[in-house]
Amino acid sequence: MRILIVNVNTTASITEAIARQAQAVAAPGTEIVGLTPYFGADSVEGNFESYLAAIAVMDRVLAYDQPYDAVIQAGYGEHGREGLQELLDVPVVDITEAGASTAMFLGHAYSVVTTLDRTVPLIEDRLKLAGLYQRCASVRASGLAVLELEEDPQRAVDAIVRQAERAVQDDKAEVICLGCGGMAGLDEQIRQRTGVPVVDGVTAAVTIAESLVRLGLSTSKVRTYAKPRPKQIIGWPGHLRR
Amino acid sequence: MRILIVNVNTTASITEAIARQAQAVAAPGTEIVGLTPYFGADSVEGNFESYLAAIAVMDRVLAYDQPYDAVIQAGYGEHGREGLQELLDVPVVDITEAGASTAMFLGHAYSVVTTLDRTVPLIEDRLKLAGLYQRCASVRASGLAVLELEEDPQRAVDAIVRQAERAVQDDKAEVICLGCGGMAGLDEQIRQRTGVPVVDGVTAAVTIAESLVRLGLSTSKVRTYAKPRPKQIIGWPGHLRR
Amino acid sequence: MRILIVNVNTTASITEAIARQAQAVAAPGTEIVGLTPYFGADSVEGNFESYLAAIAVMDRVLAYDQPYDAVIQAGYGEHGREGLQELLDVPVVDITEAGASTAMFLGHAYSVVTTLDRTVPLIEDRLKLAGLYQRCASVRASGLAVLELEEDPQRAVDAIVRQAERAVQDDKAEVICLGCGGMAGLDEQIRQRTGVPVVDGVTAAVTIAESLVRLGLSTSKVRTYAKPRPKQIIGWPGHLRR
Amino acid sequence: MRILIVNVNTTASITEAIARQAQAVAAPGTEIVGLTPYFGADSVEGNFESYLAAIAVMDRVLAYDQPYDAVIQAGYGEHGREGLQELLDVPVVDITEAGASTAMFLGHAYSVVTTLDRTVPLIEDRLKLAGLYQRCASVRASGLAVLELEEDPQRAVDAIVRQAERAVQDDKAEVICLGCGGMAGLDEQIRQRTGVPVVDGVTAAVTIAESLVRLGLSTSKVRTYAKPRPKQIIGWPGHLRR
Amino acid sequence: MRILIVNVNTTASITEAIARQAQAVAAPGTEIVGLTPYFGADSVEGNFESYLAAIAVMDRVLAYDQPYDAVIQAGYGEHGREGLQELLDVPVVDITEAGASTAMFLGHAYSVVTTLDRTVPLIEDRLKLAGLYQRCASVRASGLAVLELEEDPQRAVDAIVRQAERAVQDDKAEVICLGCGGMAGLDEQIRQRTGVPVVDGVTAAVTIAESLVRLGLSTSKVRTYAKPRPKQIIGWPGHLRR
Amino acid sequence: MRILIVNVNTTASITEAIARQAQAVAAPGTEIVGLTPYFGADSVEGNFESYLAAIAVMDRVLAYDQPYDAVIQAGYGEHGREGLQELLDVPVVDITEAGASTAMFLGHAYSVVTTLDRTVPLIEDRLKLAGLYQRCASVRASGLAVLELEEDPQRAVDAIVRQAERAVQDDKAEVICLGCGGMAGLDEQIRQRTGVPVVDGVTAAVTIAESLVRLGLSTSKVRTYAKPRPKQIIGWPGHLRR
Repeated sequence: MRILIVNVNTTASITEAIARQAQAVAAPGTEIVGLTPYFGADSVEGNFESYLAAIAVMDRVLAYDQPYDAVIQAGYGEHGREGLQELLDVPVVDITEAGASTAMFLGHAYSVVTTLDRTVPLIEDRLKLAGLYQRCASVRASGLAVLELEEDPQRAVDAIVRQAERAVQDDKAEVICLGCGGMAGLDEQIRQRTGVPVVDGVTAAVTIAESLVRLGLSTSKVRTYAKPRPKQIIGWPGHLRR
Repeated sequence: MRILIVNVNTTASITEAIARQAQAVAAPGTEIVGLTPYFGADSVEGNFESYLAAIAVMDRVLAYDQPYDAVIQAGYGEHGREGLQELLDVPVVDITEAGASTAMFLGHAYSVVTTLDRTVPLIEDRLKLAGLYQRCASVRASGLAVLELEEDPQRAVDAIVRQAERAVQDDKAEVICLGCGGMAGLDEQIRQRTGVPVVDGVTAAVTIAESLVRLGLSTSKVRTYAKPRPKQIIGWPGHLRR
Repeated sequence: MRILIVNVNTTASITEAIARQAQAVAAPGTEIVGLTPYFGADSVEGNFESYLAAIAVMDRVLAYDQPYDAVIQAGYGEHGREGLQELLDVPVVDITEAGASTAMFLGHAYSVVTTLDRTVPLIEDRLKLAGLYQRCASVRASGLAVLELEEDPQRAVDAIVRQAERAVQDDKAEVICLGCGGMAGLDEQIRQRTGVPVVDGVTAAVTIAESLVRLGLSTSKVRTYAKPRPKQIIGWPGHLRR
Repeated sequence: MRILIVNVNTTASITEAIARQAQAVAAPGTEIVGLTPYFGADSVEGNFESYLAAIAVMDRVLAYDQPYDAVIQAGYGEHGREGLQELLDVPVVDITEAGASTAMFLGHAYSVVTTLDRTVPLIEDRLKLAGLYQRCASVRASGLAVLELEEDPQRAVDAIVRQAERAVQDDKAEVICLGCGGMAGLDEQIRQRTGVPVVDGVTAAVTIAESLVRLGLSTSKVRTYAKPRPKQIIGWPGHLRR
Repeated sequence: MRILIVNVNTTASITEAIARQAQAVAAPGTEIVGLTPYFGADSVEGNFESYLAAIAVMDRVLAYDQPYDAVIQAGYGEHGREGLQELLDVPVVDITEAGASTAMFLGHAYSVVTTLDRTVPLIEDRLKLAGLYQRCASVRASGLAVLELEEDPQRAVDAIVRQAERAVQDDKAEVICLGCGGMAGLDEQIRQRTGVPVVDGVTAAVTIAESLVRLGLSTSKVRTYAKPRPKQIIGWPGHLRR
Repeated sequence: MRILIVNVNTTASITEAIARQAQAVAAPGTEIVGLTPYFGADSVEGNFESYLAAIAVMDRVLAYDQPYDAVIQAGYGEHGREGLQELLDVPVVDITEAGASTAMFLGHAYSVVTTLDRTVPLIEDRLKLAGLYQRCASVRASGLAVLELEEDPQRAVDAIVRQAERAVQDDKAEVICLGCGGMAGLDEQIRQRTGVPVVDGVTAAVTIAESLVRLGLSTSKVRTYAKPRPKQIIGWPGHLRR
């Protein structure tokens, strides 16, 4: 089984870290292919960049010319998953939803700890649309930008733990979701320091994608995610021309 | 005052119709400028096309090099308004929200009548995110594609009236919102045949944009819609490079 | 175009201030007529007084014997708008709803800063009924009574700013609504001191009322706000006998 | 114990019917006093009339000069209960809330069957504000006006049973609430014909009022329903001058 | 009238206290019978114990061989009420719902003060299922275990008052519900010290059960709470074999 | 890895069918152990039976004396999962939640098709508590009892397809969840006849349980699902004495 995991940022080192983390939990026989978009921001931290990433992720997946069984969009709280679901026949899993969905099997309420405060409303909105917000105790910002996570992982862990502890104490969270693809690999340290289960959306998404493939399930095509109708699409330089 | 009204489709005749309708209700002294995106689908009827339009609308607005006072995104249920709000200092009005917000001053519940069934969930989701869904009695599809509206306006009116009547009878709507920018100009006929107020999102958006400008109000920049942070944006051929 | 703006209090100086503020933003050709109820409390700060004002506002509007195009009820969180909508053919705009509806075009979440703590639940309830509460971050009380606003405007500004800042910091509001008709005219000072858009329900209502008139839209009469049925109404000394 | 039960209509025969029904279920030692407002509509079927009744009910209670232990407002879906709660120290029970609250002890979901379609949104809104709507399967209109209930009780029973049966079959209601004070006394017939429990808000309210008195409980005065502040109230001809 | 009040704990002294409190508010002619389950935990403070109590309460009621008119389940936030409603023809009242339902007649919002923090989510979930959570300002834990309430009532009152005061100040509660059957009898002290109405679910349930009996109302049998279908039930040692 | 899958019914042939279906999708190296409770109803179709099953499932799991890695509760809409989560250190997965959670990755809205109408409210309530109901289009009953599913599988498929088609047409479901453990194995036929993805909660639960184990995740013990406190538990004949 081959699973494409697409970064939303154009920073290749993040793609590599995500793919490495994904491969580490993949079942024997699952090949993880990490993809970096051909265009867009080096880190996605807001709506403009997220909309651009939405298109860049679709573009990058359509440019991939080998067979594959599922696609993971590795951005937390980002736009675009619905478009991929229309374009593709294979299952599509967003790490925001994978993380929340998994956390809900582990505790009565979960919190997300993400990067900058400005991304909090995006994550909340995506969780609300996904129908996964009811048991969300809070979405908290560590105050670190995406690229700062890589630069100083220990500082990142400290900042995330600080918010995770407040989420457990003040917001009554029982599980923590890591709210950024770039946090992949930090879960174990944070679990040890907080004493609650910590869900990494990337690894959660891998097991969900594998499960859907194994169960022979994929996106319903009867209404919302039906194939796009034949259209004249002009002016687009990339792989979305179809 | 100059207001940009941006079509989400690349079909120029729709832009013209929308701009004409907008100018017709504009206050004396308001200049309406209709803009057609440089790339994207000739009609937007799904998530992939809508995400592409989101970027194309931002690109088109950034390419406009004259001063302006407000921007209207003239697509019903489409993605992208949040990105415009980040990029711009002037007020941004989405016709979906303009229509619903206006309808709520006119009756206890409103319904939207749109084009194809596949666009219904997009509209519902946008209204939910906007916090304008509680008094929405239903979103109904006329079954006509966007481009069919132009081809045979009388058939369009008939199909819309049929659903509007069911919305009033069965769903208890008291007001009808026209759920497509391409329906601009049909409101009066539909009002006459249904006996309830009919809100055209395009004309509603014009008055709201004018009002915000007149009141000296624009998008809050403290959190969700703060200017994008300085980023390296690669590979993008258009006007979004900033 | 003539718009009646009806105070809910019987204090004429408040009516004058509201009407002055309304006229200041009105379009050329719009005449604002301020009306003070013939009976009721000098300031409305609770349910009993608000119910009395509901009737007094209807009474005052029915007593007005000149033509007019729209009516604004200038009380924040007060009862009665639905009754006016039944009695009248012209559009009716409540400043609570006008403020919230306008704020929602400007930021992801808004807060209201009002007068006394006891009026907070009334405002919350009106916003909930209006379907405009989902994006309300909080309703906060400045602790000042309605009549204190007039006595010492600077103290009022200080008290409002204090709560507005907490709304932005703690409740994550991005826009502030002034939660009392008697705060008309304070918006600019508060915007300067808080750095976020400040919406005055009175001026917002003027532009909405003008817009509805301009678009030829008025209250739907098919169900909730149909004309009252012919009834025997006894014992009422005022103008509501019909 | 003496309980005042106040009609919202000025039709004395309805007051008598309500009081008779209330007395029939009252505990030994409970005296029911039926009160008819001094002003207002002979039947209340909409917002204008309901707001007028809100004030008329307060006026009528304040005019009563004997001691009493609780007050029941006998209108379904009407405005005003909050005002009474501010003015009085004794418990206040609204029959809309009494009916719904009681029904929720009897089945998983309940429906209300009321008079005219135009009153449905009023009832829904009052139940929503009261936090009693979640388990409401539907509010249905029998199509009969309030005064028609008295004129031809058998026709009323037939019309109510027809909607009650649809509520049980289509809306999955398990309990029916009679949605009008004027339906008092019809519950037994409707229960026999539908096979589900039927709750008359009037009799339910009597037992709730008695219970509150017996338990020594009354309205909290710390915030929403604190006594009105001392005010200058002008121009009011009735008993509300305080 | 005879009302069975069933403890969820197997601690007989708590049963006695509950029954004594219940008898104290019962109407003349009402006989209260306190029942202690034959099996289960000496105090119920979590899901496992609560599920066991659910069955133990049903078992104990079925073992009672005298006639009775209503049953009260005297556990706060516990499972099981729905099962009793299926098995019995007489009304069943849960003290969690009785408390909340009564509190809602007394103030705009109520809070529950319970025992240990771990029981808070159980109470919240039961209130949500019951459709009584919307006006719940908070559920707060006193930190005392069930059996500690009995050991040192004065310490219990202090701990409850501390949380009740925070509920009123911080959460804007206007009424306090005692969140444990074992708190029966403490209401008056807490009311005096907090100045807000205090509802004891046990005594509230007595008056509600009496009221339902007096009104001739009992559980609807048309769907959710229909009698269990004839089944082969194996292996059960108790009174549930039917 | 060893996963226990516990039937809620005492009918061993259903246990076998469930375990066979579970083993068929399990990963290489996963051993599925089917367990039948020692007591309870031969089929669970209501609250009383479901509460009994809740305890019987806990009892049966505690009686199992070999090591295991996860537990699946194979009843749709049944009580008890929370108790297992308290008692055990390994992950616990309920098939109701597994089905809904999986369906939400496949379409915009899902419906459940279950057995008897009386179980519909139980399923709805469990989905609501689990925070998985927002995207549920409907829960529909096929009208077949649990034991009838086994007796005539073809009739079962027909009845399920009939409701699934209505769910897709009328309720706008895009995915169908099989709403009974006893429907395991019917998914492929129903998918072929309806054209939409069909999720069997049993097989979905297997992949989720495997995933949680693989990711090293289990139930949070900080609050709701902390180990039961040491208690005196009397009178219980089974394995729950601890």
